[in-house]
Amino acid sequence: MKIIIVGASGTMGTYLSNAFEKEHEIIRADRNNSVIQVDITSPVAIEKMYKKTGAFDALICTAGPTYVGPWKNLNDETFRIGVEGKMMGQINLVLIGQHYIKPKGSFTLISGALTHEPQKNFANASAANAAVEGFVRGAAIELENGIRINAVSPTVIENSPQYFPFFPGELPVTMKQLEFGFRKSVFGANTGQIIKPY
Amino acid sequence: MKIIIVGASGTMGTYLSNAFEKEHEIIRADRNNSVIQVDITSPVAIEKMYKKTGAFDALICTAGPTYVGPWKNLNDETFRIGVEGKMMGQINLVLIGQHYIKPKGSFTLISGALTHEPQKNFANASAANAAVEGFVRGAAIELENGIRINAVSPTVIENSPQYFPFFPGELPVTMKQLEFGFRKSVFGANTGQIIKPY
Repeated sequence: MKIIIVGASGTMGTYLSNAFEKEHEIIRADRNNSVIQVDITSPVAIEKMYKKTGAFDALICTAGPTYVGPWKNLNDETFRIGVEGKMMGQINLVLIGQHYIKPKGSFTLISGALTHEPQKNFANASAANAAVEGFVRGAAIELENGIRINAVSPTVIENSPQYFPFFPGELPVTMKQLEFGFRKSVFGANTGQIIKPY
Repeated sequence: MKIIIVGASGTMGTYLSNAFEKEHEIIRADRNNSVIQVDITSPVAIEKMYKKTGAFDALICTAGPTYVGPWKNLNDETFRIGVEGKMMGQINLVLIGQHYIKPKGSFTLISGALTHEPQKNFANASAANAAVEGFVRGAAIELENGIRINAVSPTVIENSPQYFPFFPGELPVTMKQLEFGFRKSVFGANTGQIIKPY
């Protein structure tokens, strides 16, 4: 299977790329440091990426910038970090990628437990995650040729201990659980699902 | 109670304004035709509105433009209709309005059942609604001075029969149910809730 991983040099993307490359052709894409450079806040850059990759079987996105910080600094400008990054970046990966993906291919986006379980400093991510999840459900009934779409929604992850203090009482998701969440989406048959890998 | 209703000349806004003005001071705001003109896609216009209204007890928003139409026409540009309108428009009403609202005041935004129950032609609204709901949960734990925030999430409403064909099998929400959903938010004590008035 030919799988594009966007965010391939991040914590999740690195783990997933390494896990899946044993059995599949992995195309690593990222803002920097990857085989294919792509800034997902730019629809033009996304289109360029797909022109380079050509037809593919699955796209995984683990890239999702949001504004993290004190509520008092949240305004129209800082809110755009999540809107352009985690939200529209991922939505455009699908809206544009649907014209390049093979029939029965799949899109797997990243959301997160903040959608339903807010934490201080993360209101921007709560909105962006929720938007991605709403979009996944809306897109699932529209995509044609058997193309599927899901989101994986972890809470704080094992390999990002710098975030643990912001998520009191959250048992971190292990990297193996995360991997299996993505496996369920990419290699399973469901669509329109928000997969909680815990 | 001094209540600002944004979208006051729309189907929902007209009904709510008429229902609540018997007991409260209602300030009607809208893009056109209202005492106070406000285009919620502009943070500058929102700030101007609050400067005119001064301190208030509650804000109700029933304004939420989104792109409605065939999936094939959904792209970065058309998607922005819901992003700037129903999503960021309402989010900015809160981010800016928190500096004008009285202690223990409330914000009540409009989302919709499409968040969890998608329909063809409405993927943009599914994302925008979901974003509003995620934001409501995130903001509820951040707002200070007892300020509350909720969203009312109806399905298709009784007084908009032009939408019935797009919502097969949905029992329309009556205007009375809708009114009571808003009453629950404005006059109750909950915060961070998505109120389904059906």
